[in-house]
Amino acid sequence: MNEDSIVRKLRRNAPLIGDDCAVIQTPRNQDLLFTTDFSIEGVHFTRESSAEQIGRRAVARSLSDIAAMGGSPLYCLISLALADWTDPHWIDGFYRGVNKLLRQTKTQLAGGDISHANQLVCDVMICGSVGKGKALRRAGAAPGDCIYVSGPLGGWRHKSDISPRLDIGRKLIGKATACMDISDGLALDLHRLCLASGVAAEIDSVPLMDGATVEQALHDGEDYELLYTAHPKRRVPGIQIGTITKGTPGALRYQGRKLAPTGYDHLQPRS
Amino acid sequence: MNEDSIVRKLRRNAPLIGDDCAVIQTPRNQDLLFTTDFSIEGVHFTRESSAEQIGRRAVARSLSDIAAMGGSPLYCLISLALADWTDPHWIDGFYRGVNKLLRQTKTQLAGGDISHANQLVCDVMICGSVGKGKALRRAGAAPGDCIYVSGPLGGWRHKSDISPRLDIGRKLIGKATACMDISDGLALDLHRLCLASGVAAEIDSVPLMDGATVEQALHDGEDYELLYTAHPKRRVPGIQIGTITKGTPGALRYQGRKLAPTGYDHLQPRS
Repeated sequence: MNEDSIVRKLRRNAPLIGDDCAVIQTPRNQDLLFTTDFSIEGVHFTRESSAEQIGRRAVARSLSDIAAMGGSPLYCLISLALADWTDPHWIDGFYRGVNKLLRQTKTQLAGGDISHANQLVCDVMICGSVGKGKALRRAGAAPGDCIYVSGPLGGWRHKSDISPRLDIGRKLIGKATACMDISDGLALDLHRLCLASGVAAEIDSVPLMDGATVEQALHDGEDYELLYTAHPKRRVPGIQIGTITKGTPGALRYQGRKLAPTGYDHLQPRS
Repeated sequence: MNEDSIVRKLRRNAPLIGDDCAVIQTPRNQDLLFTTDFSIEGVHFTRESSAEQIGRRAVARSLSDIAAMGGSPLYCLISLALADWTDPHWIDGFYRGVNKLLRQTKTQLAGGDISHANQLVCDVMICGSVGKGKALRRAGAAPGDCIYVSGPLGGWRHKSDISPRLDIGRKLIGKATACMDISDGLALDLHRLCLASGVAAEIDSVPLMDGATVEQALHDGEDYELLYTAHPKRRVPGIQIGTITKGTPGALRYQGRKLAPTGYDHLQPRS
């Protein structure tokens, strides 16, 4: 197993691979979206997950960012640093998970890099597109707007798969005043959205996944649901959880009490 | 030091950072180029290098791929997994090195990811552009073409800095029949170019960096000079090293003898 033999295998389904860069035609009347997300052994996953699951999740994480902007994914670059414990069988499983989700979401594998490290490290870049000037941003929420999530929260310990909310994101174009995905916990991510918009927020209730606690829904990460705001007269999909308010930018309240904007910080190992 | 504080610092020079994706306007009448390259502690560098040098090299590696296609860099995403030994001072140095080279090459930092790992891992994605249909490819070399390199080789043990050959790459548009950068050693990379073009090659002589041996120039990596071919009547910059020939695709000869296409494989630790 060497670098070139892995690349040769990948090229069978990915004709854009082969030169020093992937060459891509620019879509017309669209803005491009770029995002990249790590999946690191011991930080984002453990070896107990299957190779296919790890591959799928690594891609889903980046697709969720495209969904959060209301975009459609186009191309994907995957950088993979293999560890000593990864064998050809594992690598096949990993790319099976990757390719399945890429096919489902009409995203083309266009390149990447292969190396090795002490622990498995994967970095997935996705390029997507969205109508010119239409991307959903974090800044834009106004006092009085309702706050929504696209599904129940708190489930990272229970969830085996992430399903990026691309359809919901696209439906929010022209409707949501602000949008992002929940990757580091509702409290921390809503705090970020409020900071960007210069507003505060009041949460009334939080929809929970089976087996999850409110504490987990507020402060755990890895939900990958969308978090968005809209004018109260605007009909949008999802579950309303509260209201945007005037106040110190970024300040949060949950059922009337002050809520600390703590969540998952990637520089701290997950307990 | 946490994720948000690092991001806040980066945003001062990088206004595109802040949403789930960077939103980019597509350039007109251009193709886009995507490339991504790892820089991993113990594989691509050691801690003995300065933080600034490590940052600069991580970016230079990807810029070299853009140069190899004849393109101009536009945007950069940096994923950085910090190790226990990296402190805020080191991170500042790293981004100083990154930002200097990005400024020199008019490339905008547009986003990335921050996490942690047992060893420092950096992955740099660069998006560039090139005139529609004009990108330099690996496939295209024909028997009789002359083979060139953009500078002396074999210097990875001696070179403190990589200077991506963007100017030379752009000058080769419409002139070179094939082009790539030399990252894994002349022999292995010329073998790859010949395979892509369905041709063989004969090397006459190799320009050496001060202190480098022919062995190093042929089989060591990390040169980041351009390797390209052109019709013998075409004037191109660089140093001629040999000729493209008919023969088994990928077969190489050096001064009349068979040359093994061995070089640096990223799945093997560098000796």
